[in-house]
Amino acid sequence: MKKVVLAYSGGLDTSFCAKYLSVEKKMEVYSVIVNTGGFDTDELVEIEEKAYELGAKDHKTIDITGEYYTKCIKYLIFGNILKNNTYPLSVSSERTFQAIAIAEYAKEIGAEYIAHGSTGAGNDQVRFDYVFNILVPEINIITPIRELSLSRDQEIDYLKKSGVIDNWATKSYSINKGLWGTSIGGKETLTSNKSLPEEAYTNKFIDQEEKEIILGFEKGEIHSLNGTVLKDKVNLIKRIDEIASSYAIGRDMHIGDTILGTKGRVAFEAAAPMLIIKAHHALEKHTLTKWQLHWKEQLANWYGMFLHESQYLEPVMRNIEKFLVDSQKSVNGEVILKLAPYRFSVVGINSPNDLMQSDVCEYGEVNKAWKADDVKGFTKILANSLSIYSNVNKMEY
Amino acid sequence: MKKVVLAYSGGLDTSFCAKYLSVEKKMEVYSVIVNTGGFDTDELVEIEEKAYELGAKDHKTIDITGEYYTKCIKYLIFGNILKNNTYPLSVSSERTFQAIAIAEYAKEIGAEYIAHGSTGAGNDQVRFDYVFNILVPEINIITPIRELSLSRDQEIDYLKKSGVIDNWATKSYSINKGLWGTSIGGKETLTSNKSLPEEAYTNKFIDQEEKEIILGFEKGEIHSLNGTVLKDKVNLIKRIDEIASSYAIGRDMHIGDTILGTKGRVAFEAAAPMLIIKAHHALEKHTLTKWQLHWKEQLANWYGMFLHESQYLEPVMRNIEKFLVDSQKSVNGEVILKLAPYRFSVVGINSPNDLMQSDVCEYGEVNKAWKADDVKGFTKILANSLSIYSNVNKMEY
Amino acid sequence: MKKVVLAYSGGLDTSFCAKYLSVEKKMEVYSVIVNTGGFDTDELVEIEEKAYELGAKDHKTIDITGEYYTKCIKYLIFGNILKNNTYPLSVSSERTFQAIAIAEYAKEIGAEYIAHGSTGAGNDQVRFDYVFNILVPEINIITPIRELSLSRDQEIDYLKKSGVIDNWATKSYSINKGLWGTSIGGKETLTSNKSLPEEAYTNKFIDQEEKEIILGFEKGEIHSLNGTVLKDKVNLIKRIDEIASSYAIGRDMHIGDTILGTKGRVAFEAAAPMLIIKAHHALEKHTLTKWQLHWKEQLANWYGMFLHESQYLEPVMRNIEKFLVDSQKSVNGEVILKLAPYRFSVVGINSPNDLMQSDVCEYGEVNKAWKADDVKGFTKILANSLSIYSNVNKMEY
Amino acid sequence: MKKVVLAYSGGLDTSFCAKYLSVEKKMEVYSVIVNTGGFDTDELVEIEEKAYELGAKDHKTIDITGEYYTKCIKYLIFGNILKNNTYPLSVSSERTFQAIAIAEYAKEIGAEYIAHGSTGAGNDQVRFDYVFNILVPEINIITPIRELSLSRDQEIDYLKKSGVIDNWATKSYSINKGLWGTSIGGKETLTSNKSLPEEAYTNKFIDQEEKEIILGFEKGEIHSLNGTVLKDKVNLIKRIDEIASSYAIGRDMHIGDTILGTKGRVAFEAAAPMLIIKAHHALEKHTLTKWQLHWKEQLANWYGMFLHESQYLEPVMRNIEKFLVDSQKSVNGEVILKLAPYRFSVVGINSPNDLMQSDVCEYGEVNKAWKADDVKGFTKILANSLSIYSNVNKMEY
Repeated sequence: MKKVVLAYSGGLDTSFCAKYLSVEKKMEVYSVIVNTGGFDTDELVEIEEKAYELGAKDHKTIDITGEYYTKCIKYLIFGNILKNNTYPLSVSSERTFQAIAIAEYAKEIGAEYIAHGSTGAGNDQVRFDYVFNILVPEINIITPIRELSLSRDQEIDYLKKSGVIDNWATKSYSINKGLWGTSIGGKETLTSNKSLPEEAYTNKFIDQEEKEIILGFEKGEIHSLNGTVLKDKVNLIKRIDEIASSYAIGRDMHIGDTILGTKGRVAFEAAAPMLIIKAHHALEKHTLTKWQLHWKEQLANWYGMFLHESQYLEPVMRNIEKFLVDSQKSVNGEVILKLAPYRFSVVGINSPNDLMQSDVCEYGEVNKAWKADDVKGFTKILANSLSIYSNVNKMEY
Repeated sequence: MKKVVLAYSGGLDTSFCAKYLSVEKKMEVYSVIVNTGGFDTDELVEIEEKAYELGAKDHKTIDITGEYYTKCIKYLIFGNILKNNTYPLSVSSERTFQAIAIAEYAKEIGAEYIAHGSTGAGNDQVRFDYVFNILVPEINIITPIRELSLSRDQEIDYLKKSGVIDNWATKSYSINKGLWGTSIGGKETLTSNKSLPEEAYTNKFIDQEEKEIILGFEKGEIHSLNGTVLKDKVNLIKRIDEIASSYAIGRDMHIGDTILGTKGRVAFEAAAPMLIIKAHHALEKHTLTKWQLHWKEQLANWYGMFLHESQYLEPVMRNIEKFLVDSQKSVNGEVILKLAPYRFSVVGINSPNDLMQSDVCEYGEVNKAWKADDVKGFTKILANSLSIYSNVNKMEY
Repeated sequence: MKKVVLAYSGGLDTSFCAKYLSVEKKMEVYSVIVNTGGFDTDELVEIEEKAYELGAKDHKTIDITGEYYTKCIKYLIFGNILKNNTYPLSVSSERTFQAIAIAEYAKEIGAEYIAHGSTGAGNDQVRFDYVFNILVPEINIITPIRELSLSRDQEIDYLKKSGVIDNWATKSYSINKGLWGTSIGGKETLTSNKSLPEEAYTNKFIDQEEKEIILGFEKGEIHSLNGTVLKDKVNLIKRIDEIASSYAIGRDMHIGDTILGTKGRVAFEAAAPMLIIKAHHALEKHTLTKWQLHWKEQLANWYGMFLHESQYLEPVMRNIEKFLVDSQKSVNGEVILKLAPYRFSVVGINSPNDLMQSDVCEYGEVNKAWKADDVKGFTKILANSLSIYSNVNKMEY
Repeated sequence: MKKVVLAYSGGLDTSFCAKYLSVEKKMEVYSVIVNTGGFDTDELVEIEEKAYELGAKDHKTIDITGEYYTKCIKYLIFGNILKNNTYPLSVSSERTFQAIAIAEYAKEIGAEYIAHGSTGAGNDQVRFDYVFNILVPEINIITPIRELSLSRDQEIDYLKKSGVIDNWATKSYSINKGLWGTSIGGKETLTSNKSLPEEAYTNKFIDQEEKEIILGFEKGEIHSLNGTVLKDKVNLIKRIDEIASSYAIGRDMHIGDTILGTKGRVAFEAAAPMLIIKAHHALEKHTLTKWQLHWKEQLANWYGMFLHESQYLEPVMRNIEKFLVDSQKSVNGEVILKLAPYRFSVVGINSPNDLMQSDVCEYGEVNKAWKADDVKGFTKILANSLSIYSNVNKMEY
């Protein structure tokens, strides 16, 4: 029998694949779930049981949440990455790391095939295929949903006929959860003009008072919450998310370009990512020079775009990471945030590397570092190039 | 007697200058105020009276609000310009246009001197001197506050002794208002860790229900409010600001690099700018291609930085404007916004140029435009460069 | 019978297609050649005769050389575009314009099919298919060589059997010629370490004395040669090429990334392009500001990359063109070049817009425009940000 | 007596300073020369003697050539840096390192003053002052030539009267020499339209046969010449320069923007730099991915501009260096160059990391790695965004 590794999430698409591959294709299905922080133990156990029920010969759970932080989220924070100035790449950033783990697992157990449940319309098919093409070109890829152009109803029908009953038909939203946020698709996200209703969000809003919290950073990495250092970054992010998501912070819609060249719209909730990124950015504005901020933004936007578009393996990504790490040396300190229902604001920062609190000068006040004539000379020289230009050309303005 | 044109705003610094230049320097003071939308008629009359009271020989009011929209704000909207991802350049963008108007006025009346009330610590001195150096190099610049290194108390003292009494001493915040927002400086903005208290903001919050409003755009320009077209863009922006600022929308702190190389922090309230920019950006995400968005962002960020740093006259700014205008042809449609106390969100857009609502395809659904094999082929070719790379080198990830 | 428009060049690949489509596929072949300046009248007549001989029902010659200059070469000059700092996009830039002309012709005559002779390994297949997919999605594309994976020998065999005899087998180099240069592929270009032998180049070197020539530019466009204005830019470029190629100027190898992700190497000779671009760039260094040069380079490099990679139709290309045109207003004057065997140098320029010959100052000489103290003040303020930085942090260097 | 450290080069300007400071200002002059590879032992001895003759109390020679390679030239090669696509920053890159060495020396010996011979018109005054302002703000800067606005004739007169005779008056060209090339100023460089005469160049042309040489690189660093490894990079560069400059290779004129906003023109000869940079770039085109080349170019151009404009100490420069180093891991191999009188060409490369010689595919040949349908699918998906765009908008082209 042919050995196939199936990327299994417990959802409709991959459940169809499990049944279809074992029954119709008579393959030995090795289902695998790669957790990036979106599943707890109970859910993982349930998924494992479902896999066996659907005919998997073997099921494996791989937890890469820590690695996902180290190899990806860390850089998303260093780069203050919000795609199209909005989206923290909540789910799109996980896929490549899941694909790598799956490729390595398939190689390890000597599988001839890898299967995934992607449809033919979205980004994920590219993210998976891309990694498999490069890292395990000798293994064949199977994507039943894409190849058979199946609709959700057709999948449900098939599973029903095979005796598999679940509540898929009643679910209005397709939910993807990971450490860096949750993405939500549904009928509104297919329109251009409707937002998600409150109940579509997975984290429930709790009406409560405004509150200040303090996030600490060390060399750009999130390091403490309200003064308490937590070495385990994954737990630290989860704890921040718990607090912030109860305020319904970090909900928004992202509209962007897919790898396939279409426009796509998705809702997301990403409380911790929004808090951490905005805090980190505020700290950087105080501790980095103008040109560090400038170039970080250029490189980080590209990094985010490439990560989104499946290109994590590109060598230039490693080069950019070196730049980013080096830029974070002086990004140390605490950031005070005020949480309120559905919003938050940055109150301010305290940092030993704060360039605003140098002895050299105080903005807008009588200053000690230079004299009136210095600025006059500065402006005179600064104006040189246009003085010359207007001496030779007619200025347009 | 020597003729001096004095940029006069009615505030402490320029009031000192008016008195000082006419009395101590025995100059003929031609005070001039250049309105960029921050002053109403009553205020302008009051300022005129004050100017004469302080010894001005002549006072002139120049209104350039319309021109300021056409030559500046329009491009700030086209470019979705938020400095450091936060600040709509509320006041910094006005200075150059005021300086140009003053330079032209000084030339017109044959003044030998231009005076302004800038201190030696901030951006404005550079913005003024820079324009004067280039456009009227033959006219001398006088800056009494900067040259004498005067403190506010010293200025108040001098004016008191000269018989000029005002409430300057009691004002805790220094306020600058224009069409594109209000900036506020005070004791908190000199720290890194304190926010402004509610009462420091000039627009008062009115507790009210959430409400949807609709902004219309035509070729990227703001065009209508709730379906009503207003040809006068200045009035349209003011009307939007009235509605939004009653929700206390658009308040924030900006921390950035000054032209002098120091870090500076300032509070601002910019309700209409934030609404319009976020609405415009949302519309662009639906109507522009990925690479248009990419390059617009590069050029617009630079444009914003240069405008902020006094470089509006640079010829490259005209070149960038041509790019921006051309990019706006398809930025047409309406944007639905939901206003709530202290925040707002973009609900969605309707546009004849919406690239998401093409017949060609629907994201995430069974699609009509391509087949499974097309995407497989696409991904295979897309992976070529790294397949080759990993054939030759060891991949790092 | 099915109507097919065949992009016909007279070479082996497209000759095979003509025979194959008419004989094996029994199609009505409408062959078409789109001249971009590489063919003279004699050659075009010969190609027409060959087309009929191979079974074409109709043959058409479309000359777009003038349009190719206006829509493409002009911008390549404005942008000083040399891919990878070497290659003036001699041939790659023509394909899209040929494809557009072919698409329009196919539409005009109501063809159901378009055929081209591309192999499955290079850039041209993408450049053709891409345009056809977008402009005439209803027309089917046929690419016999690619689909049948034919080698050159197989094609020659087939044609021989069909009674078509030519000297294909004896040709060692594959040559593509257009107004903007000639590209040459051969056994050396498949290696990484060998150059083309002298005899592989099509323009023959004539041993002669060094000579100065003068190129005139008006708003960035090439305008005159040795003081003589030529309105017809195509003829002007051809005349410059004649002179320069007799010196064997502009020969080089380009190694770059194909659209398919592979590395490709090609030889080229582009005498006029190299002369014109280097002259234009020299003139710009004298007439544009630093930041115009900076941003032009950014945008132009992207423009060149996109043109090379088939993306001419992207709307961002139109936006960039607007920037480029606006930047050329002051690029007027004459450039003196010295030609020598196998090389040339820029002697200097004369321009009414020369920023170096302003009255304001003279580099390196005692200057009139500023005083020692101005530069001291300038440098003091310029050093502010790092004075602050080193006050707060340990400097690294 | 007041202690002053004088940056002394043996030239007219600094000789004037030595005499002037010791005699007129009655200061204790500690002259210092910082060698960056431009002076040999004989010249250094002669300069030392001259310093004492002019009244120096002490003279010191500091050799930083090795450090200059490690901290600067290495990155100029990694970045293929040619300012305005022409100038390898032959002399401008040295100044900052000389200034740092001088600052450290002044600190070490407890000097109250640092003097340098810069005029008020060029870049060097900024490069020196900038470093001193930041690293030794407590030390005062003296620049006699600049402050007294002296002409060369005035300086010669003063020295003559003081009994110092030299051949300054007869020198038509001002020459600056360092490891990375020689810059030459003279009457032609003050015009826009004249080149330097042959005899103005310091390296004499030897008429000789064409010759191939081979440069080896390891992790981007120059490593061997004609197969012979030389650990001492300084000697390796000097040896390459000796060979290449005898062919008169690397002579050109640079026209660019000074830090002061003026345009400046300078001639230079930089045989080794041109050879090494072009060879290195050729190797990179074979061994780096498209996006590595793209981003390297962005960052390196900025790096070159900042280095030129005195900003070496900016922290962003360290961040960029990290990127550059990381990008060089696969830049290994040999580059074959053909030298000819006044020119050279790159013949080809041999590299274990050559992406063109992978098994995966051969450009332009029947390929093994993908099928016709893969490219069709690729192009179909690639065309998606514009298919959608033209479905919604009218295409412009």
